[in-house]
Amino acid sequence: MNFVNGKAENVKIAYVGGGSRGWAWSLMSDLAASKKISGDVYLYDIDYEAAKRNEAIGEKFNECENAKARWNYHASETIDDALRAADFVVISILPATFDEMESDVHAPEKYGIYQPVGDTTGPGGVVRALRTLPMFEYIAKKVEENCPNAWVINYTNPMTLCVAALYRAFPKIKAFGCCHEVFGTQNLLVKALFDIEGIKCADRRDIKVNVVGVNHFTWLTEAKYQNIDIFPIYKKFCEKYVENGYMDPNQFHKWDEDGSNVWQHRHKVKMDLFLRYGYIAAAGDRHLAEFCPGKWYLNSVDEVRKTWYFNLTPVSYRKEDLKNRLAKSDAYYNGTQAVSIKDTGEEGVMMMEALLGLGDMVTNVNIPNVGQIPNLPLGAVVETNATFRTNEVLPVMAGNLPTSIYPLISRILGNQEIILEAVFTRNLDLAFEAFANDPLVTIEREDARVLFDEMIENTKEYLKMYNV
Amino acid sequence: MNFVNGKAENVKIAYVGGGSRGWAWSLMSDLAASKKISGDVYLYDIDYEAAKRNEAIGEKFNECENAKARWNYHASETIDDALRAADFVVISILPATFDEMESDVHAPEKYGIYQPVGDTTGPGGVVRALRTLPMFEYIAKKVEENCPNAWVINYTNPMTLCVAALYRAFPKIKAFGCCHEVFGTQNLLVKALFDIEGIKCADRRDIKVNVVGVNHFTWLTEAKYQNIDIFPIYKKFCEKYVENGYMDPNQFHKWDEDGSNVWQHRHKVKMDLFLRYGYIAAAGDRHLAEFCPGKWYLNSVDEVRKTWYFNLTPVSYRKEDLKNRLAKSDAYYNGTQAVSIKDTGEEGVMMMEALLGLGDMVTNVNIPNVGQIPNLPLGAVVETNATFRTNEVLPVMAGNLPTSIYPLISRILGNQEIILEAVFTRNLDLAFEAFANDPLVTIEREDARVLFDEMIENTKEYLKMYNV
Amino acid sequence: MNFVNGKAENVKIAYVGGGSRGWAWSLMSDLAASKKISGDVYLYDIDYEAAKRNEAIGEKFNECENAKARWNYHASETIDDALRAADFVVISILPATFDEMESDVHAPEKYGIYQPVGDTTGPGGVVRALRTLPMFEYIAKKVEENCPNAWVINYTNPMTLCVAALYRAFPKIKAFGCCHEVFGTQNLLVKALFDIEGIKCADRRDIKVNVVGVNHFTWLTEAKYQNIDIFPIYKKFCEKYVENGYMDPNQFHKWDEDGSNVWQHRHKVKMDLFLRYGYIAAAGDRHLAEFCPGKWYLNSVDEVRKTWYFNLTPVSYRKEDLKNRLAKSDAYYNGTQAVSIKDTGEEGVMMMEALLGLGDMVTNVNIPNVGQIPNLPLGAVVETNATFRTNEVLPVMAGNLPTSIYPLISRILGNQEIILEAVFTRNLDLAFEAFANDPLVTIEREDARVLFDEMIENTKEYLKMYNV
Amino acid sequence: MNFVNGKAENVKIAYVGGGSRGWAWSLMSDLAASKKISGDVYLYDIDYEAAKRNEAIGEKFNECENAKARWNYHASETIDDALRAADFVVISILPATFDEMESDVHAPEKYGIYQPVGDTTGPGGVVRALRTLPMFEYIAKKVEENCPNAWVINYTNPMTLCVAALYRAFPKIKAFGCCHEVFGTQNLLVKALFDIEGIKCADRRDIKVNVVGVNHFTWLTEAKYQNIDIFPIYKKFCEKYVENGYMDPNQFHKWDEDGSNVWQHRHKVKMDLFLRYGYIAAAGDRHLAEFCPGKWYLNSVDEVRKTWYFNLTPVSYRKEDLKNRLAKSDAYYNGTQAVSIKDTGEEGVMMMEALLGLGDMVTNVNIPNVGQIPNLPLGAVVETNATFRTNEVLPVMAGNLPTSIYPLISRILGNQEIILEAVFTRNLDLAFEAFANDPLVTIEREDARVLFDEMIENTKEYLKMYNV
Repeated sequence: MNFVNGKAENVKIAYVGGGSRGWAWSLMSDLAASKKISGDVYLYDIDYEAAKRNEAIGEKFNECENAKARWNYHASETIDDALRAADFVVISILPATFDEMESDVHAPEKYGIYQPVGDTTGPGGVVRALRTLPMFEYIAKKVEENCPNAWVINYTNPMTLCVAALYRAFPKIKAFGCCHEVFGTQNLLVKALFDIEGIKCADRRDIKVNVVGVNHFTWLTEAKYQNIDIFPIYKKFCEKYVENGYMDPNQFHKWDEDGSNVWQHRHKVKMDLFLRYGYIAAAGDRHLAEFCPGKWYLNSVDEVRKTWYFNLTPVSYRKEDLKNRLAKSDAYYNGTQAVSIKDTGEEGVMMMEALLGLGDMVTNVNIPNVGQIPNLPLGAVVETNATFRTNEVLPVMAGNLPTSIYPLISRILGNQEIILEAVFTRNLDLAFEAFANDPLVTIEREDARVLFDEMIENTKEYLKMYNV
Repeated sequence: MNFVNGKAENVKIAYVGGGSRGWAWSLMSDLAASKKISGDVYLYDIDYEAAKRNEAIGEKFNECENAKARWNYHASETIDDALRAADFVVISILPATFDEMESDVHAPEKYGIYQPVGDTTGPGGVVRALRTLPMFEYIAKKVEENCPNAWVINYTNPMTLCVAALYRAFPKIKAFGCCHEVFGTQNLLVKALFDIEGIKCADRRDIKVNVVGVNHFTWLTEAKYQNIDIFPIYKKFCEKYVENGYMDPNQFHKWDEDGSNVWQHRHKVKMDLFLRYGYIAAAGDRHLAEFCPGKWYLNSVDEVRKTWYFNLTPVSYRKEDLKNRLAKSDAYYNGTQAVSIKDTGEEGVMMMEALLGLGDMVTNVNIPNVGQIPNLPLGAVVETNATFRTNEVLPVMAGNLPTSIYPLISRILGNQEIILEAVFTRNLDLAFEAFANDPLVTIEREDARVLFDEMIENTKEYLKMYNV
Repeated sequence: MNFVNGKAENVKIAYVGGGSRGWAWSLMSDLAASKKISGDVYLYDIDYEAAKRNEAIGEKFNECENAKARWNYHASETIDDALRAADFVVISILPATFDEMESDVHAPEKYGIYQPVGDTTGPGGVVRALRTLPMFEYIAKKVEENCPNAWVINYTNPMTLCVAALYRAFPKIKAFGCCHEVFGTQNLLVKALFDIEGIKCADRRDIKVNVVGVNHFTWLTEAKYQNIDIFPIYKKFCEKYVENGYMDPNQFHKWDEDGSNVWQHRHKVKMDLFLRYGYIAAAGDRHLAEFCPGKWYLNSVDEVRKTWYFNLTPVSYRKEDLKNRLAKSDAYYNGTQAVSIKDTGEEGVMMMEALLGLGDMVTNVNIPNVGQIPNLPLGAVVETNATFRTNEVLPVMAGNLPTSIYPLISRILGNQEIILEAVFTRNLDLAFEAFANDPLVTIEREDARVLFDEMIENTKEYLKMYNV
Repeated sequence: MNFVNGKAENVKIAYVGGGSRGWAWSLMSDLAASKKISGDVYLYDIDYEAAKRNEAIGEKFNECENAKARWNYHASETIDDALRAADFVVISILPATFDEMESDVHAPEKYGIYQPVGDTTGPGGVVRALRTLPMFEYIAKKVEENCPNAWVINYTNPMTLCVAALYRAFPKIKAFGCCHEVFGTQNLLVKALFDIEGIKCADRRDIKVNVVGVNHFTWLTEAKYQNIDIFPIYKKFCEKYVENGYMDPNQFHKWDEDGSNVWQHRHKVKMDLFLRYGYIAAAGDRHLAEFCPGKWYLNSVDEVRKTWYFNLTPVSYRKEDLKNRLAKSDAYYNGTQAVSIKDTGEEGVMMMEALLGLGDMVTNVNIPNVGQIPNLPLGAVVETNATFRTNEVLPVMAGNLPTSIYPLISRILGNQEIILEAVFTRNLDLAFEAFANDPLVTIEREDARVLFDEMIENTKEYLKMYNV
């Protein structure tokens, strides 16, 4: 890497999971749009052909009319090749296949346990962690060997535990995890400002928030716009809309009553949580609901849709969607569809720029607790704001979890710590204790064990390290 | 108070709840047996006649042959009279009557929520706290007025929250809460030592333990006897007995299969928890079960008895038992039954002696967290060991909660903090959030609210401060 | 205040000490240059005429060609008038007169104690604090009455203690202290980068630093530019220049051998401290030297100049300079000299903008320790980076003081805490203990007391609250 | 080791420095007097003959009429032989010889730096640490190899740093440091109680104290006897005696005006410190004076004796005294003098008993800070009370250092941390920074370096690990 005229050139990025059909293209778009950095991206994927194909697609971004930076894409045959001397490592992988995810998400349904996402928490999140964290242990060791000073940016779920595994495997790693769920909540606050007070805020970044919690179960203890405290406004907003949920008049033409839009939600869970606890839950409803006892928001498929106005995302949908993404990949590759540079709303490239000294940034991020949330255990990965500046990510003092939400979050964080310990000691019995204590697992212990064992069996191909 | 020949004379004790038929007599026995302190006990009770009667009964302890100290008993007509210039304040009250407790314990049963005790946690614990804590707020204010330097010893449940309320109402109070549940676990360890290794330990006090947690959900992270680490021995013990539970051959002649012995238990919950988490749960099974999700140990009356080998304690039993205790009070008062000085196993009087500089003591106690458990919030009341020395109770550094039990305990402690806040802000909606998040409340939120409202209604005579 | 088109209008600033001849004009310049805020400035000063005069001068800034914002200036007859409903309060006062400062700085010289500045630490700093902190206690109470939600920005020395006094008098105050000394060190690092490596960095703001310590005795534990760690470069720079000190070839035409330039220094103390401790001392040498034992850098006037290459700043110089500034005030007022808008290098106006949600900022600031420096006591005012965002200043986790500098800084911070306690308890004997333990006070205790008493006597007109 | 009838038999103690003429005999006496433990003592010394001789002397203690326990003494030829499978390791060594100590204590005098002891702090303490800590690093490694579960009890100075070195070399070591200086202060408080109030307290153990600080610079923040707060009494005592110092009428027949009694002192420093800071300095005046700036109490030999009423202890005295002790060793060995069992006032054997589960104990001890003093850095060795129970030493929460003494102690502790770092990184330049920042080193830096280099040169035979 070298700096010329205030720009960083020859920046080397390693992308683990670089065969992605989707997220990779967002990164390519953001990189192409950067006015500050350029260089090389090394794509590593266990599906080498997919990486190879993205190498070609990446090149097409350079040719976009509005491209600001040139990036050379290289498919790497080994992870060592990709990581060697990297400045940044991006990790965005699918741990195993959608078949394993199908077990994660749907196997529990026979016990009345419903998971709208199933990749972070709940029974599915536990089992996903069991197969994913050993991969992160491996990646961390490879980072230690090849590029110990690189900044490692994770986008993979379960976010909190993936980041925790990186630090546990290589304590000196410089890693953090990024998630855009808080951004969505900022966007909702923009709408609330207008809906209740007629105030127009053009950019969710102007909504300044203090973030506490764990990924996907993040909460805002403050939210401000200019000289305005948003909390009383949001309270009115919630009281107005909590019964039927809020639909952005501009965003949804219609509400899919049949649930065919698997992502839709009306923020009702979020508003319900605000009215209960007095703080702003800051993630999509599908995620938030998973962290609460199953009978609160996930009692039945029907209730989810008709009462809480969101949908479960079946893995069959993801499988179908993958076909569309593969087709899109073909189209990009063959040139039948042109790539284009858009505003993705992601902040990864801005973070890289900030870490290279090209502009300060304060945003929410997942890193170990060194005191930014004093009433949570030190060392556990938490989500708060942090400052991104030249070669450092330093958390902002976010303060204690408020009393009303402390038990919800500390329970989740504690379960996550158990899973981490279970993975690194290869102890499935201990992992089961986290499973049994998960808020969604309101069934009897014996049944929980049967379910756990079944889910392990279903995904055993990826769990050999536990000697199953 | 004055000291003569190494003994403290004219010690003044105020006993709030001094009309008690039971616990008061234990205290009288222990006081009479003290070789180090003597003085006056002022009995205050909302049932003045009961206090008056205990005044007479107390006098009889002075006449026991083996009495070592003389104590003058006085029934006080007002709490101010009792507290004025007290050196020690003992609080042991029944908040409201057994009718209210009947609602606490049994109203939830129609939703399949079973509580073996119902005075600490669970739906009953929440509602009991709502009516009890304002009393403690009042007592703390009275202590501040009358005897701000007195040591206040609480025996009332919910223990943790009663102590927390004292500190919240009068932050400079010198208060702590005592509980003997850990002693019972030490006694079990004595038996395990003998059963597994043939080692005879004569006194549970020789089992040295490190205590962490909250009252009735306390855990031992270390247990040692002489040069022996008890953990591996206890593990064998648990593996031997977990299936059928342990019955002390000397203690129980028979096991009441019909559950007529409402206190009996075979430690099966305790052993199950050890085998799951690797640390020793240190309270009676009836208590421990209440802190765990309801489907683990309290799924049905039948399962409790036949699978887990303990019994629920119905309030009807307590009502019946009260009649026996009233009869005993008559007999003591009339002299048809003689009082006697026995080893009660309680430590209250030893603590008083230690606080007067007459002997150091290390034992478990409930006080605010000033860092003795670093991974729990500062200020919350926790149970750990503490040193009792002249006019000070200083906690011992107990260390972090271990990973495997952290989420169970932090959730409980967090719920308790919510209740405390709800009581002091007179906010029943907030209290309901603790109720809804209680591990035993695995029902739907709407049902939970109906139940909560019913339980409030049932006990509303004692909840006027909430404007119900 | 209201927002129009992304700008804040009708912002109300109260300026305590608004009769200033110097710093006030810098603020006026920065305010006039703001593209984001406009409104009213209320000038309060115990010298009302001075404030009145600045009211007129302020108006002239509005007329500058390059003025971006209009500000209305008002001299206030009472502090209440100035503070009422303020959004921001700026405090920049001279506590007492230069006569008192003359005693602070020069009275100790007869004992061989030399203070280059004498307004922060050392005997002069102690006595200055004794008369200044009661003023800040008063101001804080006035803020509480008139504008409890205002942000209070202090520029007065002793910085740390002034901010601490604000918080002690009104714990909910939103106050912080600003100082530009770190900026000067960043500028030196810019020069070191070029001198050693030929690297051109145009703006000191691109040197990203992690700041720890107390005001004027701040240290950088990290300093980076783009992908460059500056520490090894600065080490070479120090080794190159430590003997004769560094003179910027562009900045100084000549070195005033006679010491007539009372501000000049060659960074030799700073470099010496780096080579000793391995961390970058980040304030002017005149300040840094005062925090070290007197025989290290301040052994004699001659040694200061000939060995350490800096000068003491005699108060006679300040008195003379005041005349110049009064003349300048006349000239501005009469129009014989035109005011002009310049880059002052100060950040106060940017901070205000950030606090109004008009742009995030990360910079160094003096606020109470809530954990940003874990190995210093909580509550004490420290200097670290913080994030400035809408209505919040949240410290960045700066980390522990490194081992090598911990004892130097903890001693100073501890002395400051003693002074704070002494002021608020009006206890001059306690204040003397801080005086006696000051690093510069290497004389015998009896002599120290004589000196202290003399300095108290000299300034007693401003110390009546101590009943002297 | 095994337990029989509540006693521990076959306890194995390794004594590093077991050739001692003095302290060893105290330990032998205490061991012989124990009613609870017996076993073997392995004496290791670099002077094997001295150990051999103590082996024989030890045997004589068994023959005392009032011996309660039999201990077999064995001189070990290697440290491994001594440590193998030890239950306890006692370390009490003289690092190097009195020739080196002569340099430590007296070399600085030419610069006007006087050290009454010179083994803990001051220039002598620094240089002594430099040669002693590598020995402790070695011992810790040997403990790790031979008896990692043994309890290691250190009596060697510099106490704090020796214990710190043990933990740094072998972090899982179970080590603590014992010192009886606090006991002496308790004895003084016994006398103050009687002198001021006529209260007779028979045993200093009944004076209950809360201890904070570092070894030999320990302070009491509370001191109580029965229901009496000793602070106001001690204040009167200090005011009565501070001018001329306190002499126990029973203890000293006369005051050696010529200073020939090198241990004598009249507690004047201790009383002066109390009156200054409001807390009880709790070590001998000779130690306390060393931690304060040299001009406070150690300005000249004459002033020490005539103003402060204590004496410096010249190493010539120690050399002379050693001859007496060698003669005593001869006499014991030859039987011309009989050994006898006395109350030594030391607590080491009681601690061993407590660690074996034979009685709880609360006393002051030197161990790493895990939060017992929250405003000092975690990990640094501090002195506070701790509970000694079966196989555990858990510190009592001592609370923050009070404001008035914080800067004195944090400076010392910080210097000690620098020395520790310097030793383990073999960095004499860093060690010099602690030397230069020592309160006694009030001379110019250049002179300090000359002195330091001389002292290093004087003792270089024991400093080879630094490549000097």
